[in-house]
Amino acid sequence: MRDTFDARIAAILPVERELESAARAHLDKLTKPKGSLGKLEDLATQIYCIQHGNAPCVDPARIYTIAGDHGVITEGVSASPQEVTRQMVMNFMDGGGGINVLTDTYNVDLVLVDAGSAGPPYPEHPKILQHRIASGTANMSKGPAMKEEECLRALLLGMTLADEAHAEGFRTIGTGEMGVGNTTPSTALYCAFFGLDPMELTGPGTGLDEAAVRRKAEVIRTALRVNGDAVQSGDPVRILTALGGLEIAALTGLILGAAERGMIIVVDGFISSAAYAAAWKICPHVEGYTVFSHASAEPGHQKAMEAMKASPLLHLGLYLGEGTGAAIAMSLLRGAVNTFNQMANFDDAGVTEV
Amino acid sequence: MRDTFDARIAAILPVERELESAARAHLDKLTKPKGSLGKLEDLATQIYCIQHGNAPCVDPARIYTIAGDHGVITEGVSASPQEVTRQMVMNFMDGGGGINVLTDTYNVDLVLVDAGSAGPPYPEHPKILQHRIASGTANMSKGPAMKEEECLRALLLGMTLADEAHAEGFRTIGTGEMGVGNTTPSTALYCAFFGLDPMELTGPGTGLDEAAVRRKAEVIRTALRVNGDAVQSGDPVRILTALGGLEIAALTGLILGAAERGMIIVVDGFISSAAYAAAWKICPHVEGYTVFSHASAEPGHQKAMEAMKASPLLHLGLYLGEGTGAAIAMSLLRGAVNTFNQMANFDDAGVTEV
Repeated sequence: MRDTFDARIAAILPVERELESAARAHLDKLTKPKGSLGKLEDLATQIYCIQHGNAPCVDPARIYTIAGDHGVITEGVSASPQEVTRQMVMNFMDGGGGINVLTDTYNVDLVLVDAGSAGPPYPEHPKILQHRIASGTANMSKGPAMKEEECLRALLLGMTLADEAHAEGFRTIGTGEMGVGNTTPSTALYCAFFGLDPMELTGPGTGLDEAAVRRKAEVIRTALRVNGDAVQSGDPVRILTALGGLEIAALTGLILGAAERGMIIVVDGFISSAAYAAAWKICPHVEGYTVFSHASAEPGHQKAMEAMKASPLLHLGLYLGEGTGAAIAMSLLRGAVNTFNQMANFDDAGVTEV
Repeated sequence: MRDTFDARIAAILPVERELESAARAHLDKLTKPKGSLGKLEDLATQIYCIQHGNAPCVDPARIYTIAGDHGVITEGVSASPQEVTRQMVMNFMDGGGGINVLTDTYNVDLVLVDAGSAGPPYPEHPKILQHRIASGTANMSKGPAMKEEECLRALLLGMTLADEAHAEGFRTIGTGEMGVGNTTPSTALYCAFFGLDPMELTGPGTGLDEAAVRRKAEVIRTALRVNGDAVQSGDPVRILTALGGLEIAALTGLILGAAERGMIIVVDGFISSAAYAAAWKICPHVEGYTVFSHASAEPGHQKAMEAMKASPLLHLGLYLGEGTGAAIAMSLLRGAVNTFNQMANFDDAGVTEV
């Protein structure tokens, strides 16, 4: 299984950055002051490079919202009880979640995936893919969250999701997740990958008070110590196995698979960015394919973004997860490619070039 | 004419802020951690208050992009020659501008208005309303930019545009402009309204170098001195008359008229915010109706926003004007009202409340 995984990683090509100057030259001929569309120009340029210099195109776009549960929740690291993962996935099947409304609003396809929820299997439903690898992870403050095989299966699941979307013609993939307690493994991953201190990175998740945030940071510190061998190894798959989650590992695989397939990747907030961090450590080429949708209100997100020299597109104080920020960001990507493709140039429009 | 104007100003009602707690209570019952949709929740709450506690609604939405020229351009304050105003308006009629592409992308109606371009009248075209008040303003560094009557006519023109949109059923109005040189009057207006120094507020517009920015600041300082009586009077209409522009005054009227009609107002960048500043000085109630779409890359915009305690929604480094930022922001407003109206609540979805 590791061999299959490694072979796919080796197949990820860097984005053709040498096309950037052609994209900029095109943009500078459009009827606007040079650079005046700001980040929209950066996005269009990035997509032009991803798509080999063809007219950049965002649609169709899909978000995978992947569910998983976390053994570490027994340490009191979340304001919500574990059953909320299942309740919310059922809510998504019924169309009542934030991610449902925002994917509808922004014309984005939504697919739910069970990679590792606790409790009984979900009822069959056209919106959900049932690929449960385990009924939640083990408690990472007592030992590794996953077995290596579980983590690899989750990574390969994510890659398969990317393959399927690619085969169906999707050009843009967004990451979403649902998993009570998953800011804890995400924070642990940032600490392990970037040598950051849990005390400065840990935040309230969906609503812990200050004392509970301190306890959560202590739990993360314990998890980093208990899994010290994995952390010290520097092997990103071992670190992800020890401190990640099934939905997080599946998102890591999704990001890697989407990069291999040459798709645009829109990373959502705090948890998705932790999945991205693992993908980036596994294969830095993913960077060229990725747009960071928004700066999460979860306080550690900014430090994690800085550690990856990443610059999120939106600053809306979101901390809902589910892929909600990715759905909004996809709407901006359309503005970027449409201006690139459809604006008149100075010559054709008879406008004096500035 | 002044009486007509004053009567309309007196008819602007403050937004019903007392409805805010009902909006927040509704949002807190939806299946998400409280506050986790960040600024989308603030926007939905604001629109709920504007719309008297009815289900908030953004559409249909229209942007008026209003053109005007500026006598002060003979002082060398712009990188572009004056004919570019006309060329760009013609480009907008042909559908080739950034504002055309972005209003199409985000399903926003676009209406062009000539309030004060120089040169011959525009050819007749279904997209443009020809309401030219004068062929550009006078040079504000030699005396007032407008006669009082011209400024009042421009203000009333904007109000009439708001009336027409309201009568056609539009719920959201965006401000856009095209006018070579119009960062100069805009900067002068900010300085006059907020007691700021031209040296710290003046920026490059569409592309001046550093020495030219200093000269532009000197021109603005001269204009403030030459029109010292108007500035000292504190009368916002007199200040707008002395230092504004025909498109700027029309946008001020549009903002005031849209507030009177109870519409959502989406203010674009540096120039539109100067028109807003005049409207806000004339009637502070406009604040409750207004969303600031984006933080302009024009450096003075941040100081102007701070002076008005305004917080722009997007930070995309835009400085194109035309209403482009407003078009993008309208897309976010839809996400805000749709989540408010369509998400399930905890009880109905059977989700344990956090």
